[in-house]
Amino acid sequence: MTEQRGEHIVRAFDAELQELEQTIVRMGGMAEASLEKAVDALARRNSTVAAEVVQNDREVDLLEQQISERAVQTLALRQPMAADLREVVAALRISGELERIGDYAANIAKRSMALNQLPPMRPAHSIPRMAKLVQGNIKRVLDAYVARDAALASHVWESDEEIDETYTSLFRETLTYMMEDPRNITPCTHLLFIAKNIERIGDHATNVAELVYFLVKGERLEGGRPKGDTSSYAVVEPTDDHGGDAS
Amino acid sequence: MTEQRGEHIVRAFDAELQELEQTIVRMGGMAEASLEKAVDALARRNSTVAAEVVQNDREVDLLEQQISERAVQTLALRQPMAADLREVVAALRISGELERIGDYAANIAKRSMALNQLPPMRPAHSIPRMAKLVQGNIKRVLDAYVARDAALASHVWESDEEIDETYTSLFRETLTYMMEDPRNITPCTHLLFIAKNIERIGDHATNVAELVYFLVKGERLEGGRPKGDTSSYAVVEPTDDHGGDAS
Repeated sequence: MTEQRGEHIVRAFDAELQELEQTIVRMGGMAEASLEKAVDALARRNSTVAAEVVQNDREVDLLEQQISERAVQTLALRQPMAADLREVVAALRISGELERIGDYAANIAKRSMALNQLPPMRPAHSIPRMAKLVQGNIKRVLDAYVARDAALASHVWESDEEIDETYTSLFRETLTYMMEDPRNITPCTHLLFIAKNIERIGDHATNVAELVYFLVKGERLEGGRPKGDTSSYAVVEPTDDHGGDAS
Repeated sequence: MTEQRGEHIVRAFDAELQELEQTIVRMGGMAEASLEKAVDALARRNSTVAAEVVQNDREVDLLEQQISERAVQTLALRQPMAADLREVVAALRISGELERIGDYAANIAKRSMALNQLPPMRPAHSIPRMAKLVQGNIKRVLDAYVARDAALASHVWESDEEIDETYTSLFRETLTYMMEDPRNITPCTHLLFIAKNIERIGDHATNVAELVYFLVKGERLEGGRPKGDTSSYAVVEPTDDHGGDAS
């Protein structure tokens, strides 16, 4: 009888863990879709789609609240140990990272609404390519989470460097474009922040990769974090023939 | 005998909670000091101080790891319930927020190193004032945490709006300055990102305020989050007489 009851509790706990995992996957899918839609709204200059992304961020936030409440409830009721405890703590943290991804996607959408009031800018064409890299990482890190695949998590972690490099080159291109014509400054500033948001989303996907690795292996990913974004140190000088042309 | 043992366990648990709290306060103090030093490095154009801030961020990160490991250990060993569980989960989350604050401070320091290679920019003077507001909020939210003061936490939460408004006006001022002279574009871009970093630090202090409120009250802060940063929607147009002057 006691054993049966014990089994029953174990099964209920497994079901709770599974539900946490499913909610995280759903939340991750929503965050990734928000990024895709926000970048699409930018590329196609569609403010209606952008407004939808801003609106939907509320749902991502609610899912985080839900995961967080469930996780704390599970800690209190089941008092899990070792690997089970890691599962619940990982769920709590991963949902925090995904919530930030949703926030950044919503900010991209807001800025694309501002951009739609202004003439199209050439550097905007590089945004979707950068976003695709990041989306790929979000997708793969969620797969790594579901499959408890530390190697895949580690792969995502390493590939953040390419995203950072893409950002740094976009940063320089956009600054040069701003120097060509003062009318480019406002739209290009929004593009700079959009690119930075995408780079940050990449960082959050990397954080999730670290959490998944720790969840599976019980130890931290080794070595310094790859860091390709050198734009914080960047100095871009205007050339002599870029005197600006506001006329 | 059993009671004594129970008391002993309780005391050990209280000591662990106290240690967690002290480590968080230490970490918060370091993060706040990093912001202060980074802004000082900017104002005084001192790259040595800036390099120290970048260097010290590693210590803030290590404290977060330490808190996170201790918190998970405490969850496993003590299996706390209700209010005690909230304490441990709050420690886990607050340390995550403080780690982000440290990261943003380090990024401000990196950018001030880039700025030191360039001529001084007028909008840089508005940065320390904005940073002071944010520092005040970090200080008060740590006080609120130590005193378990929900009213003070709620006050910090509300005053984030002033920071956002300061940021939005700094954003517009900086854009106008960029339009005046293409040589201002690179330094002003770094200033824009610095201001944005400070605004984000303010957001993280607000997140801590929410966590402290929940820790004390067991319920969420009510009402929509105050949101004064409207710069994502901002469109700043160059005036006719700002034709740029690169000569």
